Amino acid sequence: MNTTPAYAALEAKGKVNPFSIERRDPGPHDVQIDIEYCGVCHTDLHFVNNDWGMSQYPIVPGHEIVGRVSGVGDKVEKYKQGDLTAIGCMVGSCGTCQSCQRGNEQYCQNGMTATYNSPSEDTGGVTFGGYSKSIVVHENFVLHMPESLEITGTAPLLCAGITTYSPLRHWHVGEGMKVGIIGLGGLGHMGVKFAHALGAQTVMITNSESKVEDAKLLGADDVLIASDADAIRKECGEFDFLLNTIPVNHNIDPYLDLLKIDGTMCVVGAIEPLEHVNAAQLIFGRKNLAGSLIGGIKETQEMLNFCADHSIISEVEVIKMEQINEAYKRLVKSDVKYRFVIEMNSLS
Amino acid sequence: MNTTPAYAALEAKGKVNPFSIERRDPGPHDVQIDIEYCGVCHTDLHFVNNDWGMSQYPIVPGHEIVGRVSGVGDKVEKYKQGDLTAIGCMVGSCGTCQSCQRGNEQYCQNGMTATYNSPSEDTGGVTFGGYSKSIVVHENFVLHMPESLEITGTAPLLCAGITTYSPLRHWHVGEGMKVGIIGLGGLGHMGVKFAHALGAQTVMITNSESKVEDAKLLGADDVLIASDADAIRKECGEFDFLLNTIPVNHNIDPYLDLLKIDGTMCVVGAIEPLEHVNAAQLIFGRKNLAGSLIGGIKETQEMLNFCADHSIISEVEVIKMEQINEAYKRLVKSDVKYRFVIEMNSLS
Repeated sequence: MNTTPAYAALEAKGKVNPFSIERRDPGPHDVQIDIEYCGVCHTDLHFVNNDWGMSQYPIVPGHEIVGRVSGVGDKVEKYKQGDLTAIGCMVGSCGTCQSCQRGNEQYCQNGMTATYNSPSEDTGGVTFGGYSKSIVVHENFVLHMPESLEITGTAPLLCAGITTYSPLRHWHVGEGMKVGIIGLGGLGHMGVKFAHALGAQTVMITNSESKVEDAKLLGADDVLIASDADAIRKECGEFDFLLNTIPVNHNIDPYLDLLKIDGTMCVVGAIEPLEHVNAAQLIFGRKNLAGSLIGGIKETQEMLNFCADHSIISEVEVIKMEQINEAYKRLVKSDVKYRFVIEMNSLS
Repeated sequence: MNTTPAYAALEAKGKVNPFSIERRDPGPHDVQIDIEYCGVCHTDLHFVNNDWGMSQYPIVPGHEIVGRVSGVGDKVEKYKQGDLTAIGCMVGSCGTCQSCQRGNEQYCQNGMTATYNSPSEDTGGVTFGGYSKSIVVHENFVLHMPESLEITGTAPLLCAGITTYSPLRHWHVGEGMKVGIIGLGGLGHMGVKFAHALGAQTVMITNSESKVEDAKLLGADDVLIASDADAIRKECGEFDFLLNTIPVNHNIDPYLDLLKIDGTMCVVGAIEPLEHVNAAQLIFGRKNLAGSLIGGIKETQEMLNFCADHSIISEVEVIKMEQINEAYKRLVKSDVKYRFVIEMNSLS
């Protein structure tokens, strides 16, 4: 059951009790938050199902969290009771490695602490996420949520939002660039909004004719149907950057074709082996295939502020806690536009 | 037999005679060169064998060419009779596309003209390469070969040299960086020399214990044996840049492990599908998998000048033309240190 190296290390130190579901008491630097909304990420379902063989039951999923501060530790300076705040995919990191020092806590070389299912020295158990009425988090991993945004659409910004915003910024997407967002789901719909707001010529690339209208409403200048070989051929070598949000293994070669010389395709969805990568595609155009994981804390705050400046939120369907199993079934069928959000006061 | 689109297009215009082996007469901008040495690249063997299904017989291979100018057209200004010159993998490009305008003729969007087996409007046939006593090339694709270098070791600079130099420069390899050169063959031995000369901490990564001593003589600070799992584990996350010169399909995942956050592995050898790429490797470290093809003309001249400044040449075994079939057999077994070069006065 205890499958991760970090978990095994804690266990060896006698610090793990996988059956503990106690949250920690707030420490001097902690912020206690009453959760109002929590987004439903496909990752939650993977962990619930133990698809990746690393689930530590019992699990409390949820890493797209919005709520108000209900209490702060003695030494907390950045937050006070009543503040609207958010928690994303991380609640801790070493703070000392090069990645942390550079504000890339998501790549912490000693392993960041995920918001749920991560070994936690504080409780001796694992961390528990946002499908809950409250959470306690170190102030360094708490974010200010702008009050101006419609709150129901904000929770998914914490994972779907930053996962797409960070690579678009890292690869300097902006005016004068042609950018393709591959896949129109939870991640893809945020990618289109951000690429458009950053000033890029934004093309949604999808297999579904039915998504054309929606993609344009979200901000896409054009829509390219991936199964239309003629249309794809005409666009070969035209894209500066592609953000690939497809969440499963797929053949990426046709997409690499779309890139200009020196173009980059960044994969953010498929956390698994890709069946096939044609190295000739990379060689004959000095193309880049890259990946990107969420974003650092500072950049996540920057993203939330960017959303406030551009009135960007996620498109969501609000559900009650008791609807979660139904929501998971629909998630598998991509039957949601574009993210479920749980109203936490439905949890009694 | 006529398999390439460019070739088919010329054929449709009635401009192709695949059985013509006439070289063109020198035009006003052409340079005629008496070839002294021509390197033997593995690509030559692929074309001779039609491994890639695009060979146009008869073939005259060879794209690592060194020789002296024996004549110039009326309008040639950069070269005169007797100059020591070189020709690499290209003899033409459109000159007008964005790639050409940026000095990246190798990525010409209208298709560069390869030194051999490329459709040629000039002759109505295909281009013929350096396994020959002479060649006629437009001055824009002729390079000055520094006289200070030992001539027998210079020919391979034109392919093996620029193929490794260009990515090392493109990804800013230099002091303070830890760089791995994967594979010690014709490309790899040049990669080690260049990375060392550029001031990087240079590590040869090879499967062969027998190559350790040689790698160090070539300039490697360290050698990492790829099959030594413990040694590889210790080096995980340590490399800024990897130049992968392995010429065939292979599992690249263990090498991606070696990269730091934001590190890049550039593939220059395997012009074919890679069996397996773990996208999680890219995502969890924002890593890049890239490719690179030779280099532009300006950069190739810069590379030759760099070689003169740092006394860099290839390690070669000089052969006579009549030994070519034996050389090909040995090439397949990697039985050469590290490049065969044909002495062209052996061609009678």
